[in-house]
Amino acid sequence: MLLYNSAGSGNCYKVRLLAAQLGLPLELQELDVVDRSNRAEVLGDLNPARRVPTLVLDDGRPLAESNAILWYLGDGSEYVPVAPYERAQVLQWQFFEQYQLEPSIAVVRFLLIFSGEAGRHAARIREQTANGYIALDAMERHLAQRTYLVSERYTIADISLYAYTHVAHEGGFDLGPYPALRAWLGRVAAQTGHVTIDA
Amino acid sequence: MLLYNSAGSGNCYKVRLLAAQLGLPLELQELDVVDRSNRAEVLGDLNPARRVPTLVLDDGRPLAESNAILWYLGDGSEYVPVAPYERAQVLQWQFFEQYQLEPSIAVVRFLLIFSGEAGRHAARIREQTANGYIALDAMERHLAQRTYLVSERYTIADISLYAYTHVAHEGGFDLGPYPALRAWLGRVAAQTGHVTIDA
Repeated sequence: MLLYNSAGSGNCYKVRLLAAQLGLPLELQELDVVDRSNRAEVLGDLNPARRVPTLVLDDGRPLAESNAILWYLGDGSEYVPVAPYERAQVLQWQFFEQYQLEPSIAVVRFLLIFSGEAGRHAARIREQTANGYIALDAMERHLAQRTYLVSERYTIADISLYAYTHVAHEGGFDLGPYPALRAWLGRVAAQTGHVTIDA
Repeated sequence: MLLYNSAGSGNCYKVRLLAAQLGLPLELQELDVVDRSNRAEVLGDLNPARRVPTLVLDDGRPLAESNAILWYLGDGSEYVPVAPYERAQVLQWQFFEQYQLEPSIAVVRFLLIFSGEAGRHAARIREQTANGYIALDAMERHLAQRTYLVSERYTIADISLYAYTHVAHEGGFDLGPYPALRAWLGRVAAQTGHVTIDA
């Protein structure tokens, strides 16, 4: 399988992490996250949103959106629950991630360390930093009484929310006040077959 | 089942529409979309994000995020494909919806017709209007050669993306240049058991 990838992207990291844990080899094609001028040309027919990650299966069929790719690769494995309510809870957290956590924490991190023009985006960084802490608060409340996000075991929901929370400090977020979240980050990183974002 | 609902919310409408087509009765409890001061009190233990829709199953278990609820209610019915790749494509479009379409089209519509302070948000409306047209462009390119978003039949992906595109004009979006999208809106509205957002 071919993965259109960007090394620093948490969304791409989700796919690389699950693939490593499943023992699935991926060929990587790196795309620039700042200069996106070639996106339509490269991804135009593969992904309506023209973003990474975009996966091309061995038979040529494309698949986009990080969390949809996790379901395609992971369903049927130990990393995806079988019970309908638990499957829906995995989705609940993944949609929370794409709606609340990624647009805040990932965007602030991108503007600060990748965009090269953080100063021009001060207002947006301030606004999305506040939204990021709302997301972290929600995770902390949930994890205070649990070891993993869903069904007390490691699932693709944990992969999805780990991707950007474990690098939140690169966006200036202070995880000091989030002990349950920090303990959970440690449990995710200790999983068999774990690989780091810069592996 | 009890649905914490807001009448004008496209996210809540998705759940009401699928439930109607499945013949599942829902008890509705209406929450204000502007004054959210009681959200923590009402939804605090049910939904980490404290938003509507939040569904409470007959046994008391809660479920949040509109698209996760569609999977829980719809999986196993005619509205959710069985093949793994088609299921992943449904998810791809639903994640696209929550990342690209809802934060633009739904937010502009909310600021214009619900917030009561559109003037104060002119810059955000301008920015998200541009993002909304990017989402509509992506849908038009895809639907130009198809009758439905996935596998040439009506699925919960169509419900998810219909919810806000069919009221995009309330956010000032002009669907004139989107003939394939308009034809698809008509096909969705003609489905057996369809109900309108204000039903």
